[in-house]
Amino acid sequence: MARTQFAAMLPLFLLLAALCGTASGASHPHPLDPLSPAEITAVRSAVLASPLVAARPLTFHYVGLDEPDKPDVLAYAARHSATRRRMVEPDALPRRAFVIARAGRASHELRVDVTNSSSPSVLSHAVHAAGPGFPTLTLEEQFDAVALPPKYAPFVESVRRRGVAMDDVLCAVFPVGWFGGEASASKRVAKMLCFVAGGTANFYARPIEGVTMVVDLDEMAIVEYRDRVRYPVPKAEGTDYRAGKAGAPLAGPEPAPGVVVQPEGSSGVHIDGHVVRWANWEFHVGFDMRAGTVMSLASVLDPDTGVRRRVLYRGFVSEVFVPYMDPVEEWYYRTFLDAGEYGLGLWAFPLQPGTDCPSNAAYFDGYYAGQDGKPVHNENMICVFERYAGDVAWRHTEAGFPGQLITEVRPDVTLVVRMVVSAGNYDYILDWEFKTSGSIRFVVSLTGLLEVKGTPYTHADQIKADAHGTLVAENTLAIYHDHYVTYHLDLDVDGTTNSFVKNFITTKRNSGNPTTGGAPTPRRSYWTVRREVAETEADGRVDIDSKPGDLLFVNPGKKTRMGNEAGYRLVSSGATAASVLAADDFPQRRASYSRTQVWVTPYNRSEKWAPGVYADQSTGEDGLAVWSARNRRIRNEDIVLWYTLGLHHIPYQEDFPVMPTLSGAFELRPSNFFERNPILRARVPSDGAHSQNCSCSVR
Amino acid sequence: MARTQFAAMLPLFLLLAALCGTASGASHPHPLDPLSPAEITAVRSAVLASPLVAARPLTFHYVGLDEPDKPDVLAYAARHSATRRRMVEPDALPRRAFVIARAGRASHELRVDVTNSSSPSVLSHAVHAAGPGFPTLTLEEQFDAVALPPKYAPFVESVRRRGVAMDDVLCAVFPVGWFGGEASASKRVAKMLCFVAGGTANFYARPIEGVTMVVDLDEMAIVEYRDRVRYPVPKAEGTDYRAGKAGAPLAGPEPAPGVVVQPEGSSGVHIDGHVVRWANWEFHVGFDMRAGTVMSLASVLDPDTGVRRRVLYRGFVSEVFVPYMDPVEEWYYRTFLDAGEYGLGLWAFPLQPGTDCPSNAAYFDGYYAGQDGKPVHNENMICVFERYAGDVAWRHTEAGFPGQLITEVRPDVTLVVRMVVSAGNYDYILDWEFKTSGSIRFVVSLTGLLEVKGTPYTHADQIKADAHGTLVAENTLAIYHDHYVTYHLDLDVDGTTNSFVKNFITTKRNSGNPTTGGAPTPRRSYWTVRREVAETEADGRVDIDSKPGDLLFVNPGKKTRMGNEAGYRLVSSGATAASVLAADDFPQRRASYSRTQVWVTPYNRSEKWAPGVYADQSTGEDGLAVWSARNRRIRNEDIVLWYTLGLHHIPYQEDFPVMPTLSGAFELRPSNFFERNPILRARVPSDGAHSQNCSCSVR
Repeated sequence: MARTQFAAMLPLFLLLAALCGTASGASHPHPLDPLSPAEITAVRSAVLASPLVAARPLTFHYVGLDEPDKPDVLAYAARHSATRRRMVEPDALPRRAFVIARAGRASHELRVDVTNSSSPSVLSHAVHAAGPGFPTLTLEEQFDAVALPPKYAPFVESVRRRGVAMDDVLCAVFPVGWFGGEASASKRVAKMLCFVAGGTANFYARPIEGVTMVVDLDEMAIVEYRDRVRYPVPKAEGTDYRAGKAGAPLAGPEPAPGVVVQPEGSSGVHIDGHVVRWANWEFHVGFDMRAGTVMSLASVLDPDTGVRRRVLYRGFVSEVFVPYMDPVEEWYYRTFLDAGEYGLGLWAFPLQPGTDCPSNAAYFDGYYAGQDGKPVHNENMICVFERYAGDVAWRHTEAGFPGQLITEVRPDVTLVVRMVVSAGNYDYILDWEFKTSGSIRFVVSLTGLLEVKGTPYTHADQIKADAHGTLVAENTLAIYHDHYVTYHLDLDVDGTTNSFVKNFITTKRNSGNPTTGGAPTPRRSYWTVRREVAETEADGRVDIDSKPGDLLFVNPGKKTRMGNEAGYRLVSSGATAASVLAADDFPQRRASYSRTQVWVTPYNRSEKWAPGVYADQSTGEDGLAVWSARNRRIRNEDIVLWYTLGLHHIPYQEDFPVMPTLSGAFELRPSNFFERNPILRARVPSDGAHSQNCSCSVR
Repeated sequence: MARTQFAAMLPLFLLLAALCGTASGASHPHPLDPLSPAEITAVRSAVLASPLVAARPLTFHYVGLDEPDKPDVLAYAARHSATRRRMVEPDALPRRAFVIARAGRASHELRVDVTNSSSPSVLSHAVHAAGPGFPTLTLEEQFDAVALPPKYAPFVESVRRRGVAMDDVLCAVFPVGWFGGEASASKRVAKMLCFVAGGTANFYARPIEGVTMVVDLDEMAIVEYRDRVRYPVPKAEGTDYRAGKAGAPLAGPEPAPGVVVQPEGSSGVHIDGHVVRWANWEFHVGFDMRAGTVMSLASVLDPDTGVRRRVLYRGFVSEVFVPYMDPVEEWYYRTFLDAGEYGLGLWAFPLQPGTDCPSNAAYFDGYYAGQDGKPVHNENMICVFERYAGDVAWRHTEAGFPGQLITEVRPDVTLVVRMVVSAGNYDYILDWEFKTSGSIRFVVSLTGLLEVKGTPYTHADQIKADAHGTLVAENTLAIYHDHYVTYHLDLDVDGTTNSFVKNFITTKRNSGNPTTGGAPTPRRSYWTVRREVAETEADGRVDIDSKPGDLLFVNPGKKTRMGNEAGYRLVSSGATAASVLAADDFPQRRASYSRTQVWVTPYNRSEKWAPGVYADQSTGEDGLAVWSARNRRIRNEDIVLWYTLGLHHIPYQEDFPVMPTLSGAFELRPSNFFERNPILRARVPSDGAHSQNCSCSVR
């Protein structure tokens, strides 16, 4: 047999990606590209030079792309698609930024034009004065705040009384939430919690329980202090997760390391600036300080017509709501809104090549504005890789032909776009997985460290009352909590105008009597589909565990040859928890959208953030539930799916000191979108694909 | 940098596996090993020589291992584990077979000792006369039956009237189910449906609709015939799925083929006969004509003590219930019990290396008894492979230390044991995935061909009444149906005696008033865990969509150092549908267990098959619901979990002519089983793992 050598194409691929990026960068950015460092710098100059905001100091809390109007972007994309093969580009759209800055104890909203980054201009200015809530906390003010306690006498005394060395103490900033009243909304405050970091990287496992501090973030001063109760600080032993610090490596056998090799190269992934083209998919990967990964303009090639068809205009994680379930003074307020309060993009850190993402991954860097407005570079923030999981795309073995066995199998290769958000103690691995079948699968994997409470308990037998958690180690209670990851998905199924269809599974009785419409058979029951087309937003709220059925987004104007409406449907894969907090409880009012998994709203460019724009100390006066209460028409409109993937997390000892990944997922699956299986004609792998003789050398 | 060459270890690994198998085969079989060809031959001789069954012809419908009593197997396994390192083996246990044979219109049950395969002996004999139901259909009688229609004059006329050439016609045998009355239960009959296979391998897509035939399988004669209605036979065009027959390969870009290379070899997977050892796992892989893969004696190593701890005694798919939802004469009875009527092992065919399983897979062959009792060899029936999906086992990035970013990541490698069952038109990919975290994940992936109905409709606009399905092509309705895959999982969590615990999530109000037990905070609500320990089987039935919570199997006699009961919990990942048929409907009576996803029963070695032993034409007088109705005690007992993974399948055009894989899954996850994360000390991949320079050549 011929012994053909294939060179591993990985280095070439990365080079190619880099070149493409450069080639694209030489002309103008895609209208949905995140702000470049130069553009962020220009935004900063314009804001600081503007007479509209006189007060100083001025701090930047959010700087992001103010994307052009949807029709303009769609027109650009259509032109881009048409002209791409001729290597000419459509005219650039204006480049604008949306800014939230704090100055003079007020939140300022500015729109800045940076189309020409050497002469940026402020287009509009408003003060967010009337409504409650504050912008995302900056990283810098959190660093400043945690420097306060070691110099604060009452805290020094609290630490001394616990026999802890101040050098070992590390503090963190926790949003206060909102619990009624007006006072809290007038001051931008946060709580601070402190931990003992000596002897472990896992300081979350060693809380200085019982101490509550409130810091005024605008004044940068501790304004409230209480040392209510003193519990033992859990010991450091057994808490560290770092290699070499967690004890000797496992003695037993372990899986062998593996590397994916693409003998024919990975020419399948083309990265052109922020646009990714792979197999039948094309999409734009953006980045935002608050949302993290922003996916836009996802379209899929119709194999029968060769036409590229739209699926998703824009999708991102709108919020991550994490309420804890202990009502005591030190815990009741812990009801985090990670995107709005902390910023998912701000808390995304460089991915580790080879472990966070496999060896065949390519990476995107990210840029955000620091508190001073200057661009901050974050390397390897998003990775893209072809996934070879050993799955099957479709198959059949036919044993029905006498003396003949027919087997046809097509292996599955998918494309994953991954970001990891380490929002304090928890790590969220957020995957977008594109399948050649036309599906998009969203996977949320939880890992990282538990948020634990110091306790006198050292054994479960001592616990007589509700401890609100699991005793995972001596003096260490892991508190019950939820995770609600809410996606904003502006589906444009084969076009902008869509409807939301609920196909409920409904049991019917068969009378057996044709004169009453029955079938003359002894079958007594069957189910059929009761189709409901949602008219208004009230019809768009669905508790997916309450009734079985399929939920679809269809384009009533686009039908298959058979006359079925082109659609995509939502398929949940676990993690369908919804909030069970009382509707009148304050955290539930702030995140009231978490009571059902599905909401559908008409597209509105200002409706992005499920708990409202100003999530910190929000009161529930803005956000998804408020918008949806207007009960606008959603039939035959440009509509948006809001899907919340939820978990009730009862911790177990295995989750300590670092939690093995727990995943939930959902899928958007083409459903009468194509005339038939779009990968029916997928290429059969060459005979050699399973008989490769591969060898590797360390570079 | 040093340029070290690693040879790909794949060929060596397969050789090693083969050698180990041989080495083990030289002594005696493991007591749970499936019957060997020699043992099947011995069973046949003993049965045919026995004077207990005089009637002829005698046909074998089931021949399987009659496994030794559980305490004997556990004692063997304990001795085996203790002696393994000294290379001596424990004493063999008796080898016995359970046989169901048909002779003289009766079902005979025989137990045959084959400990010495040269002198086998029948230990017991019984006639299944009283109860209803019949054994699994043999492949041979189905082949014989489908040869009848082309010689049956009324059918010849029906085919002629439809303008179809008889050479193109192919028929298949469909179980009749049971729809009341006694008559049906006295004769072993089946229905036959015929299709037009000319011009396509996908004959299921071209039904000769309107014709119903009943064949008496013991007489091997057509006993009923009706040609009720004539609809157009759907056209062949667009139905074939074979490469080269489905049209030109896709013109657009496609994913690049990939190969997993294990630069340090795959020494992690050790196969010793039917025992697999990998990382911290050890288990036995068996095979059964009815169940397919049978997994036994799964145990996991405790990293802190070095002790191997039991998790699962025995697990397999007990039944696959697939009811269709059209009450008309030609469809009402299609309510398949694929395991009991057809046999999952009988309908598992050779896996395709490189596509069904990746290039690093090893394979097990399988043997079953043909209708004549002779052993039939089925190659590559089960595969085992390490899965490198690009997943993360655990990770954390810590940004809380000033001026320092800590990131620790452990990539996930899992072990998959896969079988594919092609039960007629559908293909079920059945995966057991073992994780180093101690989890076992069960994945069911549906693919294959839809069962469709001929119809005059050529466009959805013509459909005015309930069509019971989706028009997926001209004259082709894909009928609504369900898939219920029921697992029998005899969990032995850290020992034989377990309890079933339901930890329900329960909302509590906080009064805010300490005098009434409230916390003096403004938080108004929280949830806590209401623990219920199931006392009897009635408490063991759970509709998992009705109330949120965790379902656990715990060993009340084994506690962690913290005092928590050692447990495993059930985590569902989609596909949680339960049957919505009326309780009094006949198919629902036969598969009444399908109304809830979870049942828990005390272990009873005879309770294996959810719809009862004799599933063909069963009436619901045997099976899981009947056993459970005895309401036996399940607290602190040896208990069994029955979990049904279910899907309501509304077909869409993409599912035609072959369906892209749709998966559902569930996980058994250690929950206070270990003292802490068992892979905390997992090895960090070497620096080189992501910087391999690999090349491949075709062998």
